[in-house]
Amino acid sequence: MSNTLGDKYRVQVFGQSHSPMIGAVIEGIPAGMAPDMDFITAFMARRAPGGALSTARKEADTPQIVSGLNERGETCGAPLCVLIQNTDARSRDYDQLRDVPRPGHADYTAAVKFSGHNDIRGGGQFSGRLTAPLCFAGALAMQLLKAKGIAIRARVHSVAGIDDAPIDLAHPPMEGLCEGPLPCVDADTARRMAEAIEAARADGDSVGGIVECWATGIPAGLGAPMFDGVENRLARALFGIPAVRGVEFGLGFAAAAMRGSAHNDPFRMSDGHIVTDSNRHGGALGGITSGMPLVVRAAFKPTPSIAREQHSVSLSRGEDAPLVIQGRHDPCIVPRAVPVVEAVVACVVMDMALCDKF
Amino acid sequence: MSNTLGDKYRVQVFGQSHSPMIGAVIEGIPAGMAPDMDFITAFMARRAPGGALSTARKEADTPQIVSGLNERGETCGAPLCVLIQNTDARSRDYDQLRDVPRPGHADYTAAVKFSGHNDIRGGGQFSGRLTAPLCFAGALAMQLLKAKGIAIRARVHSVAGIDDAPIDLAHPPMEGLCEGPLPCVDADTARRMAEAIEAARADGDSVGGIVECWATGIPAGLGAPMFDGVENRLARALFGIPAVRGVEFGLGFAAAAMRGSAHNDPFRMSDGHIVTDSNRHGGALGGITSGMPLVVRAAFKPTPSIAREQHSVSLSRGEDAPLVIQGRHDPCIVPRAVPVVEAVVACVVMDMALCDKF
Amino acid sequence: MSNTLGDKYRVQVFGQSHSPMIGAVIEGIPAGMAPDMDFITAFMARRAPGGALSTARKEADTPQIVSGLNERGETCGAPLCVLIQNTDARSRDYDQLRDVPRPGHADYTAAVKFSGHNDIRGGGQFSGRLTAPLCFAGALAMQLLKAKGIAIRARVHSVAGIDDAPIDLAHPPMEGLCEGPLPCVDADTARRMAEAIEAARADGDSVGGIVECWATGIPAGLGAPMFDGVENRLARALFGIPAVRGVEFGLGFAAAAMRGSAHNDPFRMSDGHIVTDSNRHGGALGGITSGMPLVVRAAFKPTPSIAREQHSVSLSRGEDAPLVIQGRHDPCIVPRAVPVVEAVVACVVMDMALCDKF
Amino acid sequence: MSNTLGDKYRVQVFGQSHSPMIGAVIEGIPAGMAPDMDFITAFMARRAPGGALSTARKEADTPQIVSGLNERGETCGAPLCVLIQNTDARSRDYDQLRDVPRPGHADYTAAVKFSGHNDIRGGGQFSGRLTAPLCFAGALAMQLLKAKGIAIRARVHSVAGIDDAPIDLAHPPMEGLCEGPLPCVDADTARRMAEAIEAARADGDSVGGIVECWATGIPAGLGAPMFDGVENRLARALFGIPAVRGVEFGLGFAAAAMRGSAHNDPFRMSDGHIVTDSNRHGGALGGITSGMPLVVRAAFKPTPSIAREQHSVSLSRGEDAPLVIQGRHDPCIVPRAVPVVEAVVACVVMDMALCDKF
Repeated sequence: MSNTLGDKYRVQVFGQSHSPMIGAVIEGIPAGMAPDMDFITAFMARRAPGGALSTARKEADTPQIVSGLNERGETCGAPLCVLIQNTDARSRDYDQLRDVPRPGHADYTAAVKFSGHNDIRGGGQFSGRLTAPLCFAGALAMQLLKAKGIAIRARVHSVAGIDDAPIDLAHPPMEGLCEGPLPCVDADTARRMAEAIEAARADGDSVGGIVECWATGIPAGLGAPMFDGVENRLARALFGIPAVRGVEFGLGFAAAAMRGSAHNDPFRMSDGHIVTDSNRHGGALGGITSGMPLVVRAAFKPTPSIAREQHSVSLSRGEDAPLVIQGRHDPCIVPRAVPVVEAVVACVVMDMALCDKF
Repeated sequence: MSNTLGDKYRVQVFGQSHSPMIGAVIEGIPAGMAPDMDFITAFMARRAPGGALSTARKEADTPQIVSGLNERGETCGAPLCVLIQNTDARSRDYDQLRDVPRPGHADYTAAVKFSGHNDIRGGGQFSGRLTAPLCFAGALAMQLLKAKGIAIRARVHSVAGIDDAPIDLAHPPMEGLCEGPLPCVDADTARRMAEAIEAARADGDSVGGIVECWATGIPAGLGAPMFDGVENRLARALFGIPAVRGVEFGLGFAAAAMRGSAHNDPFRMSDGHIVTDSNRHGGALGGITSGMPLVVRAAFKPTPSIAREQHSVSLSRGEDAPLVIQGRHDPCIVPRAVPVVEAVVACVVMDMALCDKF
Repeated sequence: MSNTLGDKYRVQVFGQSHSPMIGAVIEGIPAGMAPDMDFITAFMARRAPGGALSTARKEADTPQIVSGLNERGETCGAPLCVLIQNTDARSRDYDQLRDVPRPGHADYTAAVKFSGHNDIRGGGQFSGRLTAPLCFAGALAMQLLKAKGIAIRARVHSVAGIDDAPIDLAHPPMEGLCEGPLPCVDADTARRMAEAIEAARADGDSVGGIVECWATGIPAGLGAPMFDGVENRLARALFGIPAVRGVEFGLGFAAAAMRGSAHNDPFRMSDGHIVTDSNRHGGALGGITSGMPLVVRAAFKPTPSIAREQHSVSLSRGEDAPLVIQGRHDPCIVPRAVPVVEAVVACVVMDMALCDKF
Repeated sequence: MSNTLGDKYRVQVFGQSHSPMIGAVIEGIPAGMAPDMDFITAFMARRAPGGALSTARKEADTPQIVSGLNERGETCGAPLCVLIQNTDARSRDYDQLRDVPRPGHADYTAAVKFSGHNDIRGGGQFSGRLTAPLCFAGALAMQLLKAKGIAIRARVHSVAGIDDAPIDLAHPPMEGLCEGPLPCVDADTARRMAEAIEAARADGDSVGGIVECWATGIPAGLGAPMFDGVENRLARALFGIPAVRGVEFGLGFAAAAMRGSAHNDPFRMSDGHIVTDSNRHGGALGGITSGMPLVVRAAFKPTPSIAREQHSVSLSRGEDAPLVIQGRHDPCIVPRAVPVVEAVVACVVMDMALCDKF
């Protein structure tokens, strides 16, 4: 089940960076839905490489649905399989990597787990390329969720230590982010983030960052206690995105330094509904949604592929060996990670919604 | 599956704070193991209430194994059921809570999810009390892991913003922590943490903190790509502990502010083995163990139950209502959370070990 | 998951024939239900030993619910744990069996699987004793299903080759079975079955039989295609009852000898509903309920424990060895299997109902 | 999980009879295996239509592997996705079926479950066409099992009430079956079966039959007690093949008419191994393999699509309606079901083998 996400909205991702195709099989889509291919394609384009801040690899990433639709183009209750061709794979760039694993990548650990049979080309199944079918699944979920009044949006919370402006977590700016590859509340901060990314690229280096995602319109009562709650499911899912090193909800790690009287969100009535004025709890209490916006952050490490020479080992010779990584790489994964985080959150929220049949 | 953890070492927890019993059913324990009840009881005592910094509730917490052993007292391949009596439950303390939910607790969200039928006594199934059977399952796993050369230890990384001394993540001090309810590298820091907890209690308030856990001796190659990796499983499990708001691995959120050249851990040979001198990756790359110590941190929010009057609502009257919480509560959950984090990590590592039959 | 049945109405059974207790943990019971202990106890009594045709072992089998209820005795959304004491276990009867496995039992296969650590006393976890908690779970499901208009009933279809009278599968006699340990349409057949069982007992031998179960009131549309359909789930569940060797639906194996024109059930309108006059399909088409009564049969082999001397081997000496089985055994398991089949069918139907939230 | 089979050797099937493609995603294939495409293609050809006794629909059924292999063509630990084009689909044949459901098919039940959005063309996801990717997965499993000394073979046990000759279940004739579409022990019986099929076709009718499958070389000790045993898993899987109405092991339903003394298989030593001379238990005791050949039978109903006019209803008009089925259909599914049963048994045995890492 390693490549599968969800119980009722089940997304199984397959493919490697340089396999003929990548794709996903999605089970549990309610029957009778006509996928909005314009919306889905536009959403996937946000993740696609080619932007000013990303790798030069070109991918058309046109998704082809080969099962799951009836003759009217509606979902029919059968698993939907979507395929994406891998067209611009330059496998020759990666030949040396079978012997000398890249620091910070899964080359070494995969070689151990799969006894040297892992697909080393482009990172194989560990490649960020597999987030493309995840984005398809997420966009489909968003279309379904929108009909229920649920919206999902993410911003770049920080890059290279540069933080976007603080926001009111009880009223996240779903529509108020700046345009461009680094959606922020403050456009000037986004510019400084972009400069930091360019500076890292110029140095043959890379930088990390934090993505913050909000989901509004979720009714209270979704989720479950203990191990199947909102946080458990989202955390399991988000750690499936390559390079994520931390996940937090509401105030997250900052809560650990606070007192209870300052952290608790008091309840009050508002137009006959129970709300909290603040949203330090991030929309989930005891694993169950509270009706307040869901707030989750994922920390991305700096791209491990850097142009500088690094120290590694030769697996075949059992000795230290220098490594210079060829190929095309993002100096910062965060811009492309924004839609991926949105997609993963959408899949999980959709799954919880179906589990609870709200 | 909300109360169940693991695929091959499966722990199903049951019970509520004030039900007649709590317990767990554990499937997948290798046959032929004689549980070391002295070790298990001693481990569970670390979590039990009654210490200087915790609630006054008394629980003997003597675990009774009622299935899963053969006539020689060895595990026999059948599920092991362990029971713990709930003896000192004062249900009268909680009567008002069915109407006025406590801020920061699951009272409100559970009432929505379970249509008002949730067990409100002592927090019901959301109570920290359910970590007692988790500790049993974790101690059993530790006994099994010890035979494989795997050790697990946690420290208090911070309380109320007071940080313990930094350590070398490549060589965590498995044996070098100070005694007492707040195991730290630096005993003086532990004292200051204790003072901060006492100060909060004196103020009718509470504080949060961070627990850091290490696992050493895990071979490289355990885990899986994408959604079933080390981080995915541990995060799903750790967010099952009440009050956890964030989980991170290696440098975690701090990695997001770094450059790749500073964050990558170079590989090198050491006595014929592949190691990294630093351990910023925290023992897992691509969801698979690297052979370096596993490093994970969980952030705990301040205990939501505080003695001060708080604002809430009356569910029956649909209007704002003040709330003063009766009952006994920990001013800081962190001291008792230390063995719980160890136990959860042990269960997950044991599960991964069985999945990969190492 | 070996001891677990169901996705949404999840029943985890634990215990061995001679462990201190046996029981079950049930997840997914809708909150707010007050278990009807009189009904449950009466249902469980149908399975209990002690009847004229069964073993002399006495078991009070009083179920004790130790979690999952709120202070009003209603289900609260937490897992319900039920315990049953093992009081009348005579372990000394079984000592020789660790060395000389009983033909037709799991003694040998369990010894291989669990490396000789299996609990041999009374058959350990393979004992029919574990159907007692299944009956509890089934009775609880029946109470819930009854409120939805769904009824479940089983008859003895045959014993020792003696068949009960044929019935109209479209209108099973839910209320028309004879009293006693062998519920049949034809009371005289039941008497002849009882005589065959007594004759086998007198010969130090045993007999098998077939149980047929019906469920009425299930709406059309429950279930799923392929591997999670009505038949898949029921078959997986029913083969969990000890001694079951075959499971069939509708006409079952008899359908294999027929022509399509004789086997197909034509649809027709009846009072605005779609029905079939005949019910050769047994209530499920393509894994999905049709609205007609569900019809399933399970074949039970003759009790493998017989009083006659049998041939076996000594595991310790690696040589052939005679075996005379001590202890108390049912000459025919079928009478006690009737409520067990009903219980298992009830659990599966309840699970499907919750999965589809009808 | 409705389209997914297995825990460790996980096969997810997707597609509909007339979707652009059908296929499967297989997780858990051991890394480093080079699929034998000649063997796989030949195996799949046994299931393909076009034989003398089957539908006239032509399908090349060339499987295309689009993920899961490394640059050397070996499995790499990533999920393997295999695609098969649907080329000869004549959707116009099925237009009337959306309104008038075919007796014995899932048209009606699927329309209810999927609110009329089900893919009606060619039976949609309920089509026997989806057994093609199952055969791919089974052939791959067979290649892996062969390396462990495990062989799997099925025969036509009966067609239209005509039984093949009896065999010794302890020594199934793995190599001794007659050639042709109806592999039997007795070639003359196969001829009479073929005549019965042709006679049914000539009458615009169809016939059913029973397939018996054997697996040899499985070591003792695979499987699990209760709900995850050999029988549970095989039954769940086999009922996923369209038209299966019954599944039995060893003597199956016939055991119900026997006495224990005649049914038990005595153990004895043979060359240092524990065996049984007879194999009435069919290779599994208590859900765990005994080391004797696995014996399982699946009963197939007569093909519900017949040329004769049948009675049905118009869903749109809510009134009775006659039905004449157009299109091409097998007068007996049994010849093509033989490799499908082998494939499903191979997938399940492979899954159990990986679960127990033998």
